[in-house]
Formats: sequence, structure tokens, C-alpha cells
Amino acid sequence: MAYLADLQREVEFIIFDWLGDEDQETGQAVLDLSQRLANDMFAPHYRLGDTHEPELVDGRVRVSQASKDAMAAYAELGLFGASFAPEIGGMDLSQLTVSASYLMFAAANLSTAAYIMLTAANARVIATFATPAQVEHFAGPQMEGRWFGTMCLSEPNAGSSLADITTRATPDGSDGLGERYRVFGQKMWISGGEQDISENIVHLVLAKAVDSDGKVGSGTAGISLFLVPRILPDGSPNDVVVAGLNHKLGYRGIPNCALNFGEGDLQPNGAAGAVGWRIGAEGEGLRQMFLMMNEARIGVSLGAAAVGYRAFRQSLTYARERVQGKPADSERGGGNVAIIDHPDVQRMLMQQKCYCEGALALTLYAAHLSERKEEGLLSLLTPIVKSWSSAWTLRANDLAIQIHGGYGYTRDFDVELLWRDNRLNPIHEGTNGIQAIDLLERKILRGDGVATVELGSRIAATAQRARQHQDMADLAESLLTGWNRIQTTVQFLRGVERRQRLFHASPFLDAMGHVVVAWLLLDQLLVNPKNDGIHMRAKKRACRWFFASELPSISGWIAAMAMPELDELTSGIEEF
Amino acid sequence: MAYLADLQREVEFIIFDWLGDEDQETGQAVLDLSQRLANDMFAPHYRLGDTHEPELVDGRVRVSQASKDAMAAYAELGLFGASFAPEIGGMDLSQLTVSASYLMFAAANLSTAAYIMLTAANARVIATFATPAQVEHFAGPQMEGRWFGTMCLSEPNAGSSLADITTRATPDGSDGLGERYRVFGQKMWISGGEQDISENIVHLVLAKAVDSDGKVGSGTAGISLFLVPRILPDGSPNDVVVAGLNHKLGYRGIPNCALNFGEGDLQPNGAAGAVGWRIGAEGEGLRQMFLMMNEARIGVSLGAAAVGYRAFRQSLTYARERVQGKPADSERGGGNVAIIDHPDVQRMLMQQKCYCEGALALTLYAAHLSERKEEGLLSLLTPIVKSWSSAWTLRANDLAIQIHGGYGYTRDFDVELLWRDNRLNPIHEGTNGIQAIDLLERKILRGDGVATVELGSRIAATAQRARQHQDMADLAESLLTGWNRIQTTVQFLRGVERRQRLFHASPFLDAMGHVVVAWLLLDQLLVNPKNDGIHMRAKKRACRWFFASELPSISGWIAAMAMPELDELTSGIEEF
Repeated sequence: MAYLADLQREVEFIIFDWLGDEDQETGQAVLDLSQRLANDMFAPHYRLGDTHEPELVDGRVRVSQASKDAMAAYAELGLFGASFAPEIGGMDLSQLTVSASYLMFAAANLSTAAYIMLTAANARVIATFATPAQVEHFAGPQMEGRWFGTMCLSEPNAGSSLADITTRATPDGSDGLGERYRVFGQKMWISGGEQDISENIVHLVLAKAVDSDGKVGSGTAGISLFLVPRILPDGSPNDVVVAGLNHKLGYRGIPNCALNFGEGDLQPNGAAGAVGWRIGAEGEGLRQMFLMMNEARIGVSLGAAAVGYRAFRQSLTYARERVQGKPADSERGGGNVAIIDHPDVQRMLMQQKCYCEGALALTLYAAHLSERKEEGLLSLLTPIVKSWSSAWTLRANDLAIQIHGGYGYTRDFDVELLWRDNRLNPIHEGTNGIQAIDLLERKILRGDGVATVELGSRIAATAQRARQHQDMADLAESLLTGWNRIQTTVQFLRGVERRQRLFHASPFLDAMGHVVVAWLLLDQLLVNPKNDGIHMRAKKRACRWFFASELPSISGWIAAMAMPELDELTSGIEEF
Repeated sequence: MAYLADLQREVEFIIFDWLGDEDQETGQAVLDLSQRLANDMFAPHYRLGDTHEPELVDGRVRVSQASKDAMAAYAELGLFGASFAPEIGGMDLSQLTVSASYLMFAAANLSTAAYIMLTAANARVIATFATPAQVEHFAGPQMEGRWFGTMCLSEPNAGSSLADITTRATPDGSDGLGERYRVFGQKMWISGGEQDISENIVHLVLAKAVDSDGKVGSGTAGISLFLVPRILPDGSPNDVVVAGLNHKLGYRGIPNCALNFGEGDLQPNGAAGAVGWRIGAEGEGLRQMFLMMNEARIGVSLGAAAVGYRAFRQSLTYARERVQGKPADSERGGGNVAIIDHPDVQRMLMQQKCYCEGALALTLYAAHLSERKEEGLLSLLTPIVKSWSSAWTLRANDLAIQIHGGYGYTRDFDVELLWRDNRLNPIHEGTNGIQAIDLLERKILRGDGVATVELGSRIAATAQRARQHQDMADLAESLLTGWNRIQTTVQFLRGVERRQRLFHASPFLDAMGHVVVAWLLLDQLLVNPKNDGIHMRAKKRACRWFFASELPSISGWIAAMAMPELDELTSGIEEF
């Protein structure tokens, strides 16, 4: 698939040339391998995953043979262990390499690739917080790709508000795998919650532990994380039952389940309740989960960037091939031209390029920070990475459809499916609205400010370097102006009443995201400013385009926050 | 359905209180009737139309029984003739009433309602340009709802560029229905091109007439419009064959066909070619078609507004019922609240309200202009009506999904289907990109300027009236500032090279659309400025919100046009 080759070229530029991933030889080999596997085993069943949704038959979920084959091939190459330490059986590849590899699979088939992300994030929590015995039993088979993992957080009445979960875990003694519990409750939106691909499924279940007096801690204090396998160590089935499948708008290749834990259908070891083992200390559940969530948020952003970039390249190919209409400047003769010649189409392509390459840069920069353990800056940027990438690549997908005209509205082309698949990304792993509040309140206003200062100095450093080049000096000034506006806006928002401030959290995230992306796009031009090859020429043009056409939008978003009557407008609007 | 009652209330305010539709008694009765019929016969099979697409079986298209029943009930009430003169069998209802009625059906079931719009637009062309005999034979049964109509314009290689059509019509004598031709060619994207609801289908086919020397006129000069019925007057089938059905992203309740005319499967009256009768003089096809297209563009906008408004009301209901999370101002106690209490949700609702009520106001204002024969201003505004409504109600649909969270991504709720259905609206009946060029070049730069001056003076008049009210004086100034920016931008765009100008056509349309909508929202407040009921209070708040939060965006869009390097950036970008 041509789009995979284009994506690989762009990703190689980002991780090797720009971010300087050190082990280029291995990275290159992994990327080559990933592209080939994505092309051969993931891309061919992309449409099939949509038209033939997983089915629930007699309590078991059946998925397509094609996705089974793809996962088997992926496991065979050992890639499930790619990002783990060799001591526990991993390949210890750099995070940039692993992220870049995932991009290939997500671009080829977002749904099937989701098993990869979920299993890696699950195993990472175990590798980080669990006992050696738990790691060996639960993470080992996941790194081999024999078992898959899930995250069981949401409940029917607790999605964005996890403190309100009602799933309970009661003590059930202990064994070689640690403190054992019986888990009771219902979990929602579990991707891969049931499937017939892997030998076993490790559910990471967020639940409130009940103490010996039958009480639970209040709020989030009592929440712990439990390892609840589908099949128990003795080979018997655990009491984890599929209550139903969600029928989605897109992302249909992977089943999404409502799961009942301990509802009584089965009595593991003769007693009620799904058997689970606590990870780490009691009450540590949310903290542990956030490790997984943060990895998952970067994963969401990688998926969004991959899907956005694919549609961009496919609409570019279409625009180069589809002949329709006369050229804008008639002196070039009267013949019809490929639609890429039409300025409005060029504008839509340029927007897509900026949004999708921006999302790729942003997300891989986050992976780079993660690898370098720059936790402060990573934590500040994570909500932007997740939200900006998912929101703006979805816009890009919309433009890719528009370029295809009526054809883009048919299921004969991929762009409509990419748009539907991508629509989940602003919702799951914390809605974009939640991310915006996280950014503004938790990360910026209530933080110690160190990460914001660090970000500001990196932006200033880029501007300083860009200023040395005649053709970038104006961009350097625009970037600094943009960053100053963000800082002024933060000061303004610090001073307003909370309810009003929360009104502006989402536009604020958009504005800060635009400045951060502008910074990264400019920074990329400094890799080798004299490089005048096609790839860099196009990147230079896109960067200037983003500064000229996109960055001015932040003025509007910010101006809206300062209107005097907003205080009145935003106080308890309930009449519509 | 509650959303239909809400829509009716809003529409009644617009057409009776604001636009002063004169025959309120009849209008009210038609709206009541329409709401009931939409509720009883259209809404119930909305999801079914998506899950059970029309099928092609042995060359015939089968649609659902539910859509047949809905159309039969609609025809029984005589509504197909609603907008036509009594002399030819119509009910002569006002265009505002007819448009308002259509909104009810489009909100309940966009696909099924599409037959109404297509048939009315088809019959209108006939009633306007055809001979009395043609009107009686072809339009009469459509006004009775026994026959339906289509528009056959696009071809596989001629969508946006209609001058390039290759369908040919050769003379075949004449009869009581006029000049007869044989039509040969393939047409694409024909909504309702085949179905088993109506007794007959009248295809309006754009084709190039071949003269007695076998030649066709060059470019658009030789294009005429032909009446090609599926069943000929003698009851025999015409040579119109379904080449295939398009499988769409949404809007699935109505079949969309590729049709072959005169490919030889049938030999009507013993000769090759589909039999058709020319409407009006030769070479008048595009002019006639534009009448139909302009009606269809208003129809697209009505559909978009209806779908947007429905999703807005449904997400409002959801937000009022779904309890999740603590209130933003903690002093109100620790209990969980309905999500409508969260500022980010209120922001998403307010955006939807502005976009959807803006689209309703814009579209019904266009119907009002049409009724008053204010052709100049209508012609200027039509591209904005079509594009702004379809683009911004689609944004609204996206927000309606977001408010529903994970549930919004499932097919258990309507919002995902409304979003998919609405996605066609920026594409069909002239893409939004084409509309933007039409607005900037044909309507503004190449026009005589009369309509633009008229629009400016209406905006100024509204500002003048608003200025008299203390709580609107600032809005009046913002509106005038916005309009001045549009005029300055037109002057700027007049001066730049064409290729660059076309780059900015779409952002220009967005900017002008925002100013026009701001004007209409403000003008509505002047209906009765002292009215302090819930409906008007909410409209006042939304208007102020639009001015505060949306209008500033035009600064960004316009600023982007003036960047000095755009000239360089926009000259033949072909490297991506």
C-alpha cells in the first residue's frame, strides 16, 4: 500500500532525523518488517472488519479468521514483547521504534491493531506494579502474544467519573499470585473484552476493595486494580460473562463488550465471584491505572495520526488521478486537469498535511519524552497529544472525503471508514472535554509550573535557532507571539470564576495545541535547513501554511474568552 | 417525538413571528399535520432505512414497505402539490409553509423525505419551462404523488464539471408531448433513480442534443434538458436500466443509482435509445437545471438544518437525563449532577443551538426571499445557505455525538446516524467548494453589486434598530464591524491573482456566512425585544454567545488571506 510507504518515510524522518532515535539500524529493520506485515496481514481485511462485526454466539465472541491470522503473524515475530525489558522476556526496543511500528499497523487496520495497544498497556501495568510471580504468570504470556489484555474501568453509570464505580472486590485469602479477591460488578466499553483469538484474556479491573468489616474506602481512596483472568491458573473458567456487544459506528473489527464479573453463572472453586488478584497496595488503583491510561492516550493519538495520515495520502492519490474541470489560470489552455490543480483541493490537502504531520510529530515527540523519562513535560503535553491529534485528524478525514466528492460518500473508498473509525478517538480513554480540564486545571493552574516553563524555554530555543535563517525569522516571531498569548490567556483564566474557566477549557486546549504543533513543525525544519529535497520542500511549505492559515485562528478562540458578558452567559445556562 | 415539537415551535417563531408568513392559519394547520405524519409514518423507520438498504433484484430496486407506506400517506394528504398553483392542480401554499413542512419530514427521516424534495423540484422545472401538455402528462401525476421525479445530471466523469457531459440526444420526430429524442448515456448519483414506490419515474436528463448533421454545440451551449419517463405513455418500458446501486456512508433509505439510458436492453417502439422529450428550446438545459438546482440547494440546507436541529435537541435531552460527575462549583454540594450542568457540555449545546438555529433562520430566510421574488439577494445568498448550513450543522452533529460519550458512538442512539446522513450535504447539489467559488466569483466579483449593496443595507437596518436597545447596542456595532471586514476582504480578493483568490474562496464563504448568520440571529431578537419568555431568553443568550464565541473566528480566517507569502505558497502546490 503506497500510503504505508509514505507513512514510513515520514516516520523515519521524525524519529531518526528529527528526534535522533539512537538505534537506527534496529529501528529501520523493525519498521521495514512492520510495514510488510501491516501490508500483507492487516490491510487486506480492513473493510471486512467493518462489514463482518464480531458476533456473540452462545456466550462466546467470534472474530474474523483474518484478524486471528494477523495477530498470529504479529505474535510470531515477537513484537508483543517489543517494548519490554529483556529480563522479563522483552525485546527492549526504543519507545520511538515501538510507536513507529504501531503506526504502521494502525494505519493498515485500526481495529485489529487495537489488540496490540491494549495488550502492551496491560502488560506494562503488570510489569511496573505487580509482583514477580504476577509478572511471570500474567505479563509473560502477553509478551509472547498468547494471552491478550483489556482495561475494565468504565461502568454503565461511571464513564468520565471513575470515582463513582460500584464494582466490589471482597478478600478471598491469598496464594502464590498474591492477595486474592472475589470481584462483583458490571464493566462497560471493554474493547477485546471477549474474543476467540488468544488462549486467555487478562482483565485489569478497577474495583473498590471491601475490608474485613465489609466497608469500602470513600471516593477514590478505596479503589484498587485487580488481575482477573478469563481462564484461571487451574484451567477452569472464571466467572466473567459477556452481557452484550456494543454495536458501534466504526472501529468494528474489535469487539466492544459489556462484561459481568461474578454474576453467579459460574462458581469458580465452588464460590461466588470472579477470582482476581490485587496489584500492589490497596487504594493504589487509580494511580496504577493512570500509567495505563497515559500509555493508552498516546496510543489513541498514534491511532488517530495513522488514520488521518492514511486518508490524507489516499485523497492525495485520488486528487492526482481524478480529472475534472479546467485550470484556474486559463492561459494554461482549455483541457481538463487533475483536481489537484484546483486551489480549493490544494487547500484541503495542505490542511490535511498540517493536521496529520502535526499529529505525528506531536505524538512521537511524546514517545520521545517518555523514553527520556521527561515525565513533567510529558504529563503536561499528554492531554494535548490525545485531544489535538484526535480532533484535528478527524477534520482531516472529513476533508479527505470532500476531496473524493460523491465517491468519498460510498463504501467503495476507504475514506468514509477511516472517518468513522477515527470518530471514537475524541471519546475514548478520557473524552477530549476531560482532557481539556486536565490540561488547564490539573496540569497548568494547579501544577508547580515547572513543566510549563520548560515548554516555554524549548519553544524559545527553537525560535532562537529559526531566527538565524532568513526564511524562518518571521515564523520565529509568530511562534513567540503565539506562546505569549497562551501565557497571557493562562493568567486571564487563572483569575476567573471556575465555572466560567471550565467553559473555555476546550478552546484553550485547541489554542495551546495549535501553538505546540506550530513549534514542532518549525523545529523540524531546523534538522537540516539547507536540505532542498522534495520531502523537506513540502514540509517547509506546509509549515508556512500552518503559520499563515491556522495559527491566526487562536486569536478568535482567545478573544471569545475575554468578552465581558461571558460571565453572565456562562452562569448556569440551562435554557436552550 | 419531542424533537419534532421543539422544531415546530422554533419554525413557527421563524416563519410567523419573525418572517411574518401571512397565512398563519393554514400554515399552522399544515405544520400540525406534518408533525403528526412525520412522527407516525417517517420517524419509526429511520433506523430501518439504514440497516436495510434498498436492494437491486433482477434489475428492479426494492425499498422498504415502511417507506412506501410513508409516501402513500404523504401523497394521500395532497402534500406533493403543496407548493404549486391551483390552475395546474396544486394547493398554492406559501413557500415558507412548504419549507417548514418539509423540515418536519427531513428531521424525522432524511432519506424518505428526499423523495418529496426531488419530486417537487422536478415538477417545478416542468411547471416553469414545459408546455401545457408536458405539464399535464409529467408534472400532474407528480403533484398527486403517483409518479416521482429525479435529476440526472452527473456522469461518471462529469460531476462538478457539467459542461463535460457526454450523454447524447438524437432527434426522433415530435408528438403531442413535444420534440421527441432518443437519449444515450450513463448518469451517476441518481437518488431515487429506481424504486418500487411510485407508478412511474420522471427522469430529468441533462444531455447534448445532436443536430440533423450529427453535431453537438460546443461546451454548455448544446445542453438541453429532457423528460425521460421510466414507463412510456403507451405503458411500455423505456430503455432506462439500473447499472448499479451506490453503497453509501449514510442517507441509505433512498437508493442511489447509476442509470444507463439507451444502452440497448430495450428497444422502445422498435428503435434504440431511451425516449425523451425536450423541455423548452435547445441549449436551455443548464439554465433550466439551475432553477431545479437552486431549489435543491435550499432543500439540502433544509435537510441539514433539520438533521442538525434534531441531534441538538436529542443531545440536550440526553444531557438533562444523564447523571455523571460533580458540579463545577463545589459549594452546591457533593452529589452528582446531570451533565448539562458541566460547562463543557453547555458550551457544546450552545454551539449546536447557534449552528442549527442559524441554519434554520438562514434557510427559511431564503425561502422567504424566494416567495417575495427577491431573486438578486436570493441568488447571492444561495451558496451560503447551502454550504454554511451543511458545514456547520455537521459540526453540530459531531458535538451531539460527543455529548453522548461512548453511547453516542453506538448505533443504539440516533446521533451517529444523523451525522452520517448529514455528511452528504456538503457534497451533493454542488460541493461546498463549488459553492464558495460561485459566491466569490460569480455572485460577488462578477455581479453588478446590487445584491451585495442590498444585503449591506439590510444588515445596516438591523444594526440601526438593535442600537435602540441598550442590551443590543454592542451587538449592532460588532455586526457592522463584521460586515465591513467582509467588504474589505472582497476588495482585497478582487485585487489578487485568480489562483490565489480561489484558495481563499472557502474560508471567505465561512466568514461571510458567519456574518450573515450573526445578522439573522440579531434580527430575530428585534421581533419583540421585550419578550422575556424562556424561548426568547434562550435565543438572546445564544445570539450573544454567537457574537462572543463564533464571530471572532472570522478574524483568523481573514488574517490568513493577507499573509504576504501566500502568493508563493499557493502557486501550483503539487508536492505534498
